[in-house]
Amino acid sequence: MLEHWNDGPTKAAIVDFVDQTVAEVEPEARIAVFDNDGTLWCEKPMYIQLDFLVRRFAEQVAADPSLRERQPYKAVYEDDLRWIGDAVTKHYEGDDTDLKPLVGAILSAHEAITVEEHASRVRAFFAEATHPTLGRPYRECGYLPMVELLQYLAGNGFTNYIVSGGGRDFMRPITGALYDIPPERVVGSSVGLIYRDGSLFTTAQPEFLDDRPMKPVRLWSRIGRRPIFAAGNSNGDIEMLEFADTPGGSALRLLVRHDEAEREFDYTAGAERALDQAAASGWVVSRIKNDWATVFGD
Amino acid sequence: MLEHWNDGPTKAAIVDFVDQTVAEVEPEARIAVFDNDGTLWCEKPMYIQLDFLVRRFAEQVAADPSLRERQPYKAVYEDDLRWIGDAVTKHYEGDDTDLKPLVGAILSAHEAITVEEHASRVRAFFAEATHPTLGRPYRECGYLPMVELLQYLAGNGFTNYIVSGGGRDFMRPITGALYDIPPERVVGSSVGLIYRDGSLFTTAQPEFLDDRPMKPVRLWSRIGRRPIFAAGNSNGDIEMLEFADTPGGSALRLLVRHDEAEREFDYTAGAERALDQAAASGWVVSRIKNDWATVFGD
Repeated sequence: MLEHWNDGPTKAAIVDFVDQTVAEVEPEARIAVFDNDGTLWCEKPMYIQLDFLVRRFAEQVAADPSLRERQPYKAVYEDDLRWIGDAVTKHYEGDDTDLKPLVGAILSAHEAITVEEHASRVRAFFAEATHPTLGRPYRECGYLPMVELLQYLAGNGFTNYIVSGGGRDFMRPITGALYDIPPERVVGSSVGLIYRDGSLFTTAQPEFLDDRPMKPVRLWSRIGRRPIFAAGNSNGDIEMLEFADTPGGSALRLLVRHDEAEREFDYTAGAERALDQAAASGWVVSRIKNDWATVFGD
Repeated sequence: MLEHWNDGPTKAAIVDFVDQTVAEVEPEARIAVFDNDGTLWCEKPMYIQLDFLVRRFAEQVAADPSLRERQPYKAVYEDDLRWIGDAVTKHYEGDDTDLKPLVGAILSAHEAITVEEHASRVRAFFAEATHPTLGRPYRECGYLPMVELLQYLAGNGFTNYIVSGGGRDFMRPITGALYDIPPERVVGSSVGLIYRDGSLFTTAQPEFLDDRPMKPVRLWSRIGRRPIFAAGNSNGDIEMLEFADTPGGSALRLLVRHDEAEREFDYTAGAERALDQAAASGWVVSRIKNDWATVFGD
């Protein structure tokens, strides 16, 4: 039971919460929601989905060399991935100059294909793509203690959902194998779909960015209940953690803190406000360095 | 097993399909989707949700008498519900003159309350409201053979979802009791929600009208799989039934036909194209008169 968690206050808080829930909360109401990037799997040095998209951009440049002159394809062609990281960093600093063409390219990367074809592109990616620095396949970049936590909750009658800023249809083909979470329990960002002749086709129109206050909105749309357990790792998860509640007010809100340079990554960028609120509101903070005996599985 | 269905080709088609599915389709893929109004519960002489709204309009007129001069509140105040029916009929004939103020009133009827308060208004309605001609509470207006079909499918490893043009958050508080379908498996139309201070509040902004080609789009958003069983009763269900599929191509598409004036209602308005397509494509048509031994439960 949670054997890859070190003994200490974090593990104890989780176990106490689950024991209390099993005693007091009916199974239908045992809803747990998890952010994905940085909470269930590694998000550094870049989002796994961004690598999926970068590889697609490279295919698009190969098919249409005129794209070499346009960002973000230029950066990909010149192997200058720093440009992408900088575009995202600048966005968080309030400057969207580079983010706009990046988002346009992201939205159109897999345009006008069926949802089934999209899923098969995702499966092909996870079948072979490897993490650039950890030396392991992306499909093995889930955090072992968090996977164990999912299993522990499921074993105690919880229903686990992913509620992520990542792409809904990017995560779905892989979450069953990684987390035992089926597609109907994956909530994420999406492009609009259109129906034609018996099939659904992707568009390049944004539908939802499932982040910040949209997280409680989208999880309500999907689940129709408040979660009693919510886990995240960044500022984008604050509202979802706030929304978690129980009639008795004893929801567990868990924030993963990345402070482990050796086994994973050490960063607080993008999590500053969440960490402040965790301290102010008594949320449980899981420090990877202290709390996780192992970070990744074999 | 399906004891309120008369023996005949419709019942036989259902049983054969389920037997074949159990033999050939893994449980995770046994997804069944059902329209609600006119498929699982009675939609005549008006949608049950419309009665819920009309009662709210009456409350609004009582609180603000100046509304007596404005439609649709005027019609409600003057007990002229025919005006509402006509507005909808005119819409289907291409004239939205009266539908526009009606839709505006519908969208704002339950504006700026928490999702929990909305659910408690719905529960209060179903606790007491009765059908205007059938002489039974609305909460007993589900079709017994269809409830039995839901149970039969669930008993054979299917997961049942509602995918309705009706309001998502209007149906959710009652579908557990009526159909044993929990809130997370109810897909429907919705207004936008906004998050504030730990709660979600309704707005008067339309989000999705879950009808026609939006039905497959919204069910994919929720489920992420194609259904292998789809049931409806109107033109609004055509695309959802078309989208149902199995790898072997043996999905069951069921269309309920209302031809029973004595025990329920006899109408084809709004179902003309669906009935044509059912005939052309070999969809299973359930004629209430012939196929259902009983329409409503006690």
